[in-house]
Amino acid sequence: MSSIAILAGDGIGPEVMQEAKKVLAAVADKFNFPLSTQDYDVGGCAIDNHGEALPASTVKGCEQADAILFGSVGGPKWENLPPTEQPERCALLGLRGHFELFCNMRPATLQPALASLSTLRSDIASSGFDVLVMRELTGDIYFGQPKGRKGEGEEESGFDTMIYSRKEIRRIARLAFQAAQKRNNKVTSVDKANVLATSILWREVVNEVAQDYPDVALEHLYVDNAAMQLVRDPNQFDVMLCPNLFGDILSDICAMITGSMGMLPSASLNSSGFGMYEPAGGSAPDIAGQGIANPIAQILSAALMLRYSLNQGAAADAIEAAVAKALDEGVLTADLLPAEQKHLAKRTAEVGDFICQAI
Amino acid sequence: MSSIAILAGDGIGPEVMQEAKKVLAAVADKFNFPLSTQDYDVGGCAIDNHGEALPASTVKGCEQADAILFGSVGGPKWENLPPTEQPERCALLGLRGHFELFCNMRPATLQPALASLSTLRSDIASSGFDVLVMRELTGDIYFGQPKGRKGEGEEESGFDTMIYSRKEIRRIARLAFQAAQKRNNKVTSVDKANVLATSILWREVVNEVAQDYPDVALEHLYVDNAAMQLVRDPNQFDVMLCPNLFGDILSDICAMITGSMGMLPSASLNSSGFGMYEPAGGSAPDIAGQGIANPIAQILSAALMLRYSLNQGAAADAIEAAVAKALDEGVLTADLLPAEQKHLAKRTAEVGDFICQAI
Ligand SMILES: CC(C)[C@H](C(=O)O)[C@@H](O)C(=O)O
Ligand SMILES: CC(C)[C@H](C(=O)O)[C@@H](O)C(=O)O
Repeated sequence: MSSIAILAGDGIGPEVMQEAKKVLAAVADKFNFPLSTQDYDVGGCAIDNHGEALPASTVKGCEQADAILFGSVGGPKWENLPPTEQPERCALLGLRGHFELFCNMRPATLQPALASLSTLRSDIASSGFDVLVMRELTGDIYFGQPKGRKGEGEEESGFDTMIYSRKEIRRIARLAFQAAQKRNNKVTSVDKANVLATSILWREVVNEVAQDYPDVALEHLYVDNAAMQLVRDPNQFDVMLCPNLFGDILSDICAMITGSMGMLPSASLNSSGFGMYEPAGGSAPDIAGQGIANPIAQILSAALMLRYSLNQGAAADAIEAAVAKALDEGVLTADLLPAEQKHLAKRTAEVGDFICQAI
Repeated sequence: MSSIAILAGDGIGPEVMQEAKKVLAAVADKFNFPLSTQDYDVGGCAIDNHGEALPASTVKGCEQADAILFGSVGGPKWENLPPTEQPERCALLGLRGHFELFCNMRPATLQPALASLSTLRSDIASSGFDVLVMRELTGDIYFGQPKGRKGEGEEESGFDTMIYSRKEIRRIARLAFQAAQKRNNKVTSVDKANVLATSILWREVVNEVAQDYPDVALEHLYVDNAAMQLVRDPNQFDVMLCPNLFGDILSDICAMITGSMGMLPSASLNSSGFGMYEPAGGSAPDIAGQGIANPIAQILSAALMLRYSLNQGAAADAIEAAVAKALDEGVLTADLLPAEQKHLAKRTAEVGDFICQAI
């Protein structure tokens, strides 16, 4: 029996999670494998109910599960908490650190058929793109020590430490090359080696790892250039291998230029295959509770979970095929429709139901 | 007599600098002020001639001048040098550090008339935008110490220090608010305060400074969100106040989405008004030596120099008006023309000559 910790969170989290649960039940039924789910509080609602964004009971529940399906956290209610108590930060960094989820995969795909959604110029978007951002998620300036304040008065400073070891770079680089082998055999490694000592080591180790994957083409780009290239011609990329901080920025650019953030899943894995799966978008408090949010990112996150942590590849394929069918047949929430077609929008539950039936 | 240190550099640097010099001579003549220029080697050509990208003789020449007009540096010939010897890094970081050029201004403007050049979707680009990136240029992880390597074998790490003092944040923030007062009264401060101690202090000091500018609206954005917003709706921004590293990335996105990098000047100033002025684009070795590069970014950099370091505002205005005339009348290099009109392109010198005549 596989067991899943469900952390729906805040905003649209609970309503899109509802659909993902329905879809999980549908594939468990069809492919005949036992699956149990257990809900836990996280984020703002956990602050309200337990006084902290990531309560010990939630962490314990996740430890006992085979995978975590995460919704989204945060909202205006908790916005005035001090930075270190923000729900996003506490929940995400806490879970990433605790479970050592070093490998974050953020696929961003633009189908030529949906090119008009992209924020890029039509001749650029029309060719579509398929970029996988492989972001290192437990190192870099996020977790590097020391971090804090020193000095007095106007000389007082805030400081952080960017740091990567060879070992940390090597393990994420290997996974990026392996991912590229199953895709278009190209890795673009992102750094700022013209300024950062951390990046010089990053580039050195990535070059070493590349020797073991002679079939994969490797290029190195400075982060500023990578950001520019993404908004000039995203189709030039296959796998983008990024340190934590640069991956944060570049994966968000990738998400935005698909024009359909509500469709993008992500996976964060550790070395034993345990993982946390979550949509790329946020908690979207402005539309929460109305039943109009796009559940596809959450549903595709469940598919990634089945594939990477629960070894149910066929079920994952079935979900992805059903989602493709919904898109093909125009079973779309409002975010995927141009202004003049918004009246044709389906509700969150209608999209979930269609996908369940298609399975 | 104002004296200018000319550092043309590599690639297209010398040929676009040639036009800037002609334009400077034209305004000096018309507005009747004495101006002398002196050339110095920098970048790759300085490595070739003197063994280093920023020779002491060049620094000395700059010290004796009232301002530096910089072209661009780097190219394939020097690409295989170790990261710490790269011409871009050595020349730029060396000059920024030596002259404490902490205030980098990178204006990025898209005129609605040139909207089709933007890489953004036409309905987004059609409203145009006018963003000024105010980037702190002598602090942050660029110059923070310690920086280096430690440990052995697979535990060996590379590390860098991100650090800002209140004083450093305050001086750039003040200039950003003052710039906003002359523009559209809005400052967007960029940080990553949900992760970085440096950013928490950054946000604190920016909030303090804001009190002295009650007429300017202030918002804070996380860098990942700022990058997304730039490719979704750049028109929402006026002044973007950025720490060094985030400013590097965001200013390049801004430049790219104008679609006309060859037209963007920049200024890097210290607290006494001394400054270095350079185009946003690079040395473009692929088109160097052909006489087809766009000289406008270099010419507009000269205009900023006249305004900010040489107190010749009228001459700067005259240059900018002449450039606008060239654009209006279609006196354009190939980079500004759509594919089917490339045959109408003017050469570098023709654009320079037109601007001189229009002055
Ligand atoms: C909320 C924040 C700490 C987080 C990050 O920076 O990693 C988020 O932006 C993300 O990308 O998942
Ligand atoms: C060449 C490099 C050191 C430099 C920087 O990162 O500042 C460049 O990208 C820039 O933006 O001027």
